[in-house]
Amino acid sequence: MYRSHSCGELRESHIGTTVTLSGWVSKTRDKGFVVWVDIRDRYGITQLVLDEDRTNATLLEQARNLGREFVIQIKGEVIERASKNANIPTGNIEVLVSELTILNESKTPPFTIENETDGGEDLRMKYRYLDIRRKPVQNNLIFRSKVTMEVRKFLSGEGFIEVETPYLIKSTPEGARDFVVPSRMNEGQFYALPQSPQTFKQLLMVGGMDKYFQIVKCFRDEDLRADRQPEFTQIDCEMAFVEQEDILYVFENLTKYLLKEVNGFEIESFPRMTYDEAMSKYGNDKPDIRFGMEFGELNAVAQHKEFGVFNSSELVVGIAVPGAASYTRKELDALVNWVKRPQVGAKGMVYVKCNEDGSYKSTVDKFYDQDDLAKWAEVTGAKPGDLICVLSGDANKTRTQLSALRMEMATRLGLRKPNEFAPLWVVDFPLLELDEETGHYHAMHHPFTSPKPGQLELLDTDPGAVRANAYDLVLNGNEIGGGSIRIHDKETQATMFKHLGFTPEEAKAQFGFLMDAFQYGAPPHGGLAFGLDRLVAILGGQETIRDFIAFPKNNSGRDVMIDAPAAIDNEQLKELNLKLDIQE
Amino acid sequence: MYRSHSCGELRESHIGTTVTLSGWVSKTRDKGFVVWVDIRDRYGITQLVLDEDRTNATLLEQARNLGREFVIQIKGEVIERASKNANIPTGNIEVLVSELTILNESKTPPFTIENETDGGEDLRMKYRYLDIRRKPVQNNLIFRSKVTMEVRKFLSGEGFIEVETPYLIKSTPEGARDFVVPSRMNEGQFYALPQSPQTFKQLLMVGGMDKYFQIVKCFRDEDLRADRQPEFTQIDCEMAFVEQEDILYVFENLTKYLLKEVNGFEIESFPRMTYDEAMSKYGNDKPDIRFGMEFGELNAVAQHKEFGVFNSSELVVGIAVPGAASYTRKELDALVNWVKRPQVGAKGMVYVKCNEDGSYKSTVDKFYDQDDLAKWAEVTGAKPGDLICVLSGDANKTRTQLSALRMEMATRLGLRKPNEFAPLWVVDFPLLELDEETGHYHAMHHPFTSPKPGQLELLDTDPGAVRANAYDLVLNGNEIGGGSIRIHDKETQATMFKHLGFTPEEAKAQFGFLMDAFQYGAPPHGGLAFGLDRLVAILGGQETIRDFIAFPKNNSGRDVMIDAPAAIDNEQLKELNLKLDIQE
Repeated sequence: MYRSHSCGELRESHIGTTVTLSGWVSKTRDKGFVVWVDIRDRYGITQLVLDEDRTNATLLEQARNLGREFVIQIKGEVIERASKNANIPTGNIEVLVSELTILNESKTPPFTIENETDGGEDLRMKYRYLDIRRKPVQNNLIFRSKVTMEVRKFLSGEGFIEVETPYLIKSTPEGARDFVVPSRMNEGQFYALPQSPQTFKQLLMVGGMDKYFQIVKCFRDEDLRADRQPEFTQIDCEMAFVEQEDILYVFENLTKYLLKEVNGFEIESFPRMTYDEAMSKYGNDKPDIRFGMEFGELNAVAQHKEFGVFNSSELVVGIAVPGAASYTRKELDALVNWVKRPQVGAKGMVYVKCNEDGSYKSTVDKFYDQDDLAKWAEVTGAKPGDLICVLSGDANKTRTQLSALRMEMATRLGLRKPNEFAPLWVVDFPLLELDEETGHYHAMHHPFTSPKPGQLELLDTDPGAVRANAYDLVLNGNEIGGGSIRIHDKETQATMFKHLGFTPEEAKAQFGFLMDAFQYGAPPHGGLAFGLDRLVAILGGQETIRDFIAFPKNNSGRDVMIDAPAAIDNEQLKELNLKLDIQE
Repeated sequence: MYRSHSCGELRESHIGTTVTLSGWVSKTRDKGFVVWVDIRDRYGITQLVLDEDRTNATLLEQARNLGREFVIQIKGEVIERASKNANIPTGNIEVLVSELTILNESKTPPFTIENETDGGEDLRMKYRYLDIRRKPVQNNLIFRSKVTMEVRKFLSGEGFIEVETPYLIKSTPEGARDFVVPSRMNEGQFYALPQSPQTFKQLLMVGGMDKYFQIVKCFRDEDLRADRQPEFTQIDCEMAFVEQEDILYVFENLTKYLLKEVNGFEIESFPRMTYDEAMSKYGNDKPDIRFGMEFGELNAVAQHKEFGVFNSSELVVGIAVPGAASYTRKELDALVNWVKRPQVGAKGMVYVKCNEDGSYKSTVDKFYDQDDLAKWAEVTGAKPGDLICVLSGDANKTRTQLSALRMEMATRLGLRKPNEFAPLWVVDFPLLELDEETGHYHAMHHPFTSPKPGQLELLDTDPGAVRANAYDLVLNGNEIGGGSIRIHDKETQATMFKHLGFTPEEAKAQFGFLMDAFQYGAPPHGGLAFGLDRLVAILGGQETIRDFIAFPKNNSGRDVMIDAPAAIDNEQLKELNLKLDIQE
């Protein structure tokens, strides 16, 4: 038996008992007469003590020579600690060591295994197994495990069946790039790794499984932006015989359940907002509603004056930033420069200081008098002490820019609290999205997404205006889930394919087996998928998904710890009937 | 709202209420005056009724024209059924239909959607989404979901953390073939799909995760034997600071828990048997111990007589088949032929009928008298009425042959009851296995498996005799799990590599990052992995894993439903820097 207790378990009630502990040497302090050793495992840290009075000389010498991260087993008596440490649960006791075994030695680790480490990102990734020994990383992984367990408990309780869908499937030409897997047994042919189990979950609905879920890895061979991973995990769900409302109900409850079980956080309201409303109020289809600063559209009160910039703009829109009227000229100039950065892209910014005395001071005082500015304050909801920031131009672009500013100001003001949660549904997404390059419309979600009842006719006259039975679950400014009610009848499906520019032959080539399946009694169905990595990070009060993945890849898709991908043998290539074809 | 109740929910207590049901038309019976329609969903079947007295003519006509597998929604009143059907839970009621909506039509399905279908394996696989609509398949998938949920509950309760390990890893040259995945972003390089998360779970132990599990897909590009899948699911577990006994204890309890929760079956004893004992008593390292027929070694009582075949054999060994003394000459000849089939490979078989009067009649009466045969009966435990079957020859081969006969006879006698469970541990597996072709030893489990204490020296003198801290969990004649205590100190590891014929450089090339990790304080650790597909099939009282996989592949590794694998675009190949290289 390697241990009688964990390193996080001993308390004053254990004083006087003899215990066996195993773990890593976290720290040794050698005061000559006495040596203290901190021993660590997943459960905590316990202080060991050896001294010249009570410990034999050999043992004391052995303890002195323990290196950081040595794996040791000790036997000893739990005693009261002279100088107690209230910061750790075992801080009232220490263990007087009577036996010490070195289970394994350790080279000096390349960075310190502490909550705050001196190791940079690259080093921590290369030695991820040591990084995982650090409490914050370990806690993140434990947290992730807890979240998935709670998801499974909730969905099982609701009658969902977890079904494993295959990983070796078929490449489809549309959307993001597939990772492919050459087949040795089927010469010249390839499997593809799933970008999502979308078609399989729809087939399960055709198969009558009624309520399906799966926590499953998905794969996308995209050029990686920061905080994207080529493999990621999805909570994938689908239900049959449901309308949108049935789905929102279930997953609203799942979200509330998770926040309660995992974060101890009770959700009071779970608003729903149309896509159009989200765009006009927040300039964003995934608004963070934990704070105000809603958009005020100023066209009516700011146009038709002498200010040409606003007069020629499609949209003039502002937000009231709480308390920012006190910004200095230098801070304000910096803010104007911030919105003019290429990442934001505004041409300039007009601002109005709402003074505590009720007066206004703006950068456009030449064109607007105090009454005009009072109207701006009314529209944006600005109070004395606030700063009204106004952008103008093309409606869509301006909204996006103001949204960026809104989020930036909220961050600066500390309004994006990691332990406060405000979920909402954004519904009625556009069915189609215009590809500006080709001038063609394509499905915003996927070609099986159902248009809202009665809107099918609009496809001919105003395709961009058609709204879908599609919804996103948004939490703290992040899309954590999205889905739709699917088309299940073939007439609607044929109309959709026509408008997406597919010939019947093309549709068959790409979606053949799903369309075949739909001829044999497909029930009405719909579902959604959560991005687990993102969900866990946000519930964990953080924004970087990489910190919640045990062995993440870097931005080039490499695992620097195992040094993958790597070259393979020519023999192996030959068996797969492949040759490298590298352009010099 | 598509339904107020499921199709399996209505009982006599609902009589008089108006309900809405949705589901598939399972069957219509048109008796002219009255039409019955069976509507089906995942939860059951409800009988609908329409008749000329109570239903309007249009509706009745509509019901008459419903095809099999049409998806319908009905509204109606629950009424008492005239001729009750005690076979189904809804058999006391029927629903008098007042409204009927066809949600979707269906072509005539290619086979009947009944418990017993007229569809062959190929057709059912091609239309797997229809096959899944069949109750037995649906039940298997639901059963699988329940098993995995119970596994997670148990392990979470024991403090195990589920950690997701990566799917895009690195190809290693040893063992079975990897599936590889070309990397677009890393020219000419490949990921590999994991054959198991073995190294990652060991790294998690180095990382201090202490107790890890994962239910995870694994991949092996092997030529497929019957009932093997290129992708399969594993319950993967690892623990730190444990000895073999700690691991056996946890997973013995998991097995008991599953049998109780899933099958309602209480396990009384959970025997342990060494590999050597299993081989000598059952000729098999995964014995089915639900019935006796243990091997009796007859060398001492059958050799040194006049019978040359036995005298020249390394091993003479028999089993007593209960009640088989009554076999006719014809049946006995057939049995002798059975053991001589190439799949079994015996040269012949000696048998002894143990007559009810206490006398014996054997095929070797010329060489053995009644006293001799009485000794055989004693050694094999044969009783009057039994048939003693004796094989002889090379010890290993003969044991394998007699094991095949034992299993065959048990099957014929109905002793392998699907709803009776007898788990056991087989322990002390050989550390090394002789490759008869090359004359080299290789690791039976994997090169990190720890030898039993004190046996390391034997590696020099008698490598085949070294036993490992390796164990298999056996259930009803199937290996459902296996694992080992790992080597965690570098001296033992170096010795192992030397004996496996690796130079230090080769060892580094193949296991480099794990060996690196082991230099930074690897704790003593060990674990095991269950084959989930097999486990679920056996708990489900069946032996074919394919019936418990939603979308299985055939023996050529093809998914015939989606027709994968398939050719991919030249464009796609080019992006991956690959060319096909197919030999004409």
